[in-house]
Amino acid sequence: MNCGANRRRPVIALAMGDPAGISPELTAKLLDLAEIHDAAELIVIGDARVLARGAKIAGATLQLPHVTARNALHGAHRPVLFDLQHLDPTSLAPGIASQAGGAFAVANFRTALRLAADGFADAVCFTPFNKGAMRLAHPPYEDEIGFVANTLGVDTPASEFNILGTLWNARVTSHIPLSAVAGLISAESVLHGIRLTHAALRTSGIAAPRILVAGLNPHAGDGGNFGREEIDAIAPAVEQARREHIQAEGPFPADTVFVRARNGGFDAVVTMYHDQGQIAMKLMGFDSGVTLLGGFPFPICTPAHGTAYDIAGQGIANIGASRAALLLAARMVSERLMLA
Amino acid sequence: MNCGANRRRPVIALAMGDPAGISPELTAKLLDLAEIHDAAELIVIGDARVLARGAKIAGATLQLPHVTARNALHGAHRPVLFDLQHLDPTSLAPGIASQAGGAFAVANFRTALRLAADGFADAVCFTPFNKGAMRLAHPPYEDEIGFVANTLGVDTPASEFNILGTLWNARVTSHIPLSAVAGLISAESVLHGIRLTHAALRTSGIAAPRILVAGLNPHAGDGGNFGREEIDAIAPAVEQARREHIQAEGPFPADTVFVRARNGGFDAVVTMYHDQGQIAMKLMGFDSGVTLLGGFPFPICTPAHGTAYDIAGQGIANIGASRAALLLAARMVSERLMLA
Repeated sequence: MNCGANRRRPVIALAMGDPAGISPELTAKLLDLAEIHDAAELIVIGDARVLARGAKIAGATLQLPHVTARNALHGAHRPVLFDLQHLDPTSLAPGIASQAGGAFAVANFRTALRLAADGFADAVCFTPFNKGAMRLAHPPYEDEIGFVANTLGVDTPASEFNILGTLWNARVTSHIPLSAVAGLISAESVLHGIRLTHAALRTSGIAAPRILVAGLNPHAGDGGNFGREEIDAIAPAVEQARREHIQAEGPFPADTVFVRARNGGFDAVVTMYHDQGQIAMKLMGFDSGVTLLGGFPFPICTPAHGTAYDIAGQGIANIGASRAALLLAARMVSERLMLA
Repeated sequence: MNCGANRRRPVIALAMGDPAGISPELTAKLLDLAEIHDAAELIVIGDARVLARGAKIAGATLQLPHVTARNALHGAHRPVLFDLQHLDPTSLAPGIASQAGGAFAVANFRTALRLAADGFADAVCFTPFNKGAMRLAHPPYEDEIGFVANTLGVDTPASEFNILGTLWNARVTSHIPLSAVAGLISAESVLHGIRLTHAALRTSGIAAPRILVAGLNPHAGDGGNFGREEIDAIAPAVEQARREHIQAEGPFPADTVFVRARNGGFDAVVTMYHDQGQIAMKLMGFDSGVTLLGGFPFPICTPAHGTAYDIAGQGIANIGASRAALLLAARMVSERLMLA
């Protein structure tokens, strides 16, 4: 795979997401974008009937070969559909999370991950999942990071990044009750988040990432008046990161750190909890945010928005974030190929 | 004061804030705006020398009478300066919090509050304070709400609102460590916040306020998976508010509630903690946000930004938020006068 590596296009395994929402429409719209095919070779994983229905909703005419066995992917013209022949969309109620819809998404995602792990693809993307549906089909499903680690049999520290344009957001804690956040903020956990962010940004092609670090408490603790985590954990983590030649700054008050980041000159904000970053990122670009699962052997990208059950089947789903997710994955692979 | 009450202009006591930052410049710039005088009669409280220096920085030529005794305010032409003759600005280092600067602001604020309490003014505004400086001068100073309650000798439930254009934000908890937030979220505390917001919006002239209520946890708890406060406290509070004919809705995930509010049709968002609202409000309008202390016998308004020590003396301070604060106070008084 290395000869001429820096000229070939990245191969991306695109798993179709929840079939009851906008994912089939988004998958078809992606396939209909010329710039996607300029940037990457796509292997779409799903069912031909679900994709055809998505194309009809999207108003897209898709012409791509279908294969039903993995070995047939070798040498197949791209884009290509890997048709798992596992879901008849007429059996599915639109806009409702179901076990059948979850099973469809789980199988597509697992297949995409294995294709990438086995060298058939350089990166994985997926259109939005419904975690509840996936849990119905596969009860151990907690979140994407856990499923990927399990499927790949890896135990590396991984992290979810939210990306808007060129600005990245990583968080030290994520899907936990707010009451549990402060107890997980330590110099170690914050330093770990800064290091992961630095490493992932470098992998995406930023040679010397500039990272802002948020505080935890109002006014970043106001000198210890409203909490001591800034003094005891976050500032020491930033100092240690700087000793490791990471360009980190902070802690800054959460309510101004994104104003600062938006003004430019920074690549990432490391936040302490889910909504600290998500409130800002969604306000700055609700329709174009990308989620990246970083820390795995290959990039895994998806739009940051959800399945949008409320507008399923209408043809009005915004393709912006899915497009951005695919282009980010392609760019990250290209950077790696050039480094190889 | 009632005859012809709905035609007279509101009288606003404007306390000069911290003299080492941009407050003198902002005070002078406000006095230089014709629309302020169309909306309100100003009694400025401070020192003539500090105001003159502010005017010089602002490039404004101010002509207003000075009085040095409270009784001379009766019948004085407006705007008027109530000159407390208590600070020579040449004795002060710019851009540094000091006891002298804090004493200046505390005296101005106390005087403004007493003028309003005694019927000399209908509302109070102030240019930005430095709480640290005020604590140096007056160690019991915790925050504005505590100082006002103490000065007025009242014990009514008061709350701080942040206002951007026509959108209000109130919070159930404020300047406390993040680790203490969840323990203070109860059906009672949330309902109290919703009621206060409803009442304050009505006072400002919104007959039937529409209020969005944020959740506490990521994804508003995801049905109890990431915390139960939405189920146990916030939803019951919203239901009770609706039984009281308050148009409240929620709880909504914190990372989309402001996207929803920004799309229009709502008057306020009630958030559970400081940064949940402040991250959004500062991103949406860093230079124009207003803080209102609600629940007192008269409106008290100030720009949401701080003393901006870093740009003191340069003449570049943005007047937008101070202007909005004064116009909001004037509008709230006018509404009350019309109801009287």
